[in-house]
Amino acid sequence: MKEIFERRSIRKYTDQPIPDEHVEKLLMAAMAAPSAGNQQPWEFVIIRDRKILEGITKFHPYSQMLKEAQLAIVVCADLDREKHVGYWQQDCAAATQNLLLEAQYLGIGAVWLGIYPREERVNGIKTLLGLPERVIPMAVISIGYPAENKGPSDRYDKTRVHINKWEF
Amino acid sequence: MKEIFERRSIRKYTDQPIPDEHVEKLLMAAMAAPSAGNQQPWEFVIIRDRKILEGITKFHPYSQMLKEAQLAIVVCADLDREKHVGYWQQDCAAATQNLLLEAQYLGIGAVWLGIYPREERVNGIKTLLGLPERVIPMAVISIGYPAENKGPSDRYDKTRVHINKWEF
Repeated sequence: MKEIFERRSIRKYTDQPIPDEHVEKLLMAAMAAPSAGNQQPWEFVIIRDRKILEGITKFHPYSQMLKEAQLAIVVCADLDREKHVGYWQQDCAAATQNLLLEAQYLGIGAVWLGIYPREERVNGIKTLLGLPERVIPMAVISIGYPAENKGPSDRYDKTRVHINKWEF
Repeated sequence: MKEIFERRSIRKYTDQPIPDEHVEKLLMAAMAAPSAGNQQPWEFVIIRDRKILEGITKFHPYSQMLKEAQLAIVVCADLDREKHVGYWQQDCAAATQNLLLEAQYLGIGAVWLGIYPREERVNGIKTLLGLPERVIPMAVISIGYPAENKGPSDRYDKTRVHINKWEF
């Protein structure tokens, strides 16, 4: 599917705003993800406030593109929603990947910035956004219309594929 | 994108075999996922051997559909490939979600079975497949052509969306 194979991390953006209905589509895609026992542990914070976007760049070392981004979406887990303890990272990562692919489908550029498990980043986001203790920010997605062109990256590596057992 | 919104967990399969080139497409999609610093920590084991598929059902409580599946793909992380320690679960979950969406695109049914962090399942798979100590199985994907029809599930929940801060 071309969205999967053509998606790349986009860190340069135009100043064209992203319409709210497209942001909603990104969130709908994220929430369509599978999760352990369908527990849907996720919560999302849309950041359009420039001061908050810049606040992130003060403690996250790889987040300078947020200064030019139209918005960011913070993907969080509410640990109180976990029925199957220990699966929230996988659930939220599946939701994040859906969001990135829907962005690609809509012609929107995005990049996944890691937060959890780096303690200083988790605490930085928690303080900046006023998250309750039980809510863990996993990732920040920086979003805007692309101002850079990247071709597909072929990452397929046959040596990573094993048949029936590890060795044969 | 319709693959995202129409994908459901498929647990009943026909006896039609899945061609190798489609299995390869699933793996190509998985490996096209983003990962922390592009570290690509993943390894995959394709299981078509019926005895091994049935072996999984002996220790995994929600895996009975493997008895009818055409194959399974075990998504693993090789911890020696982690440059950014602590992100392998998120990386492998993004790869898994790509795999599930590519399956949907190809008309193939699949369901994500959780392995990590349940110790008895991790150890069961490690023993069955002969995985080295450093390789952690995260999930098993059960795969076959669908013998059940499920409509899309609308999981969108506006109360999970926050603007700029948790509360305002």
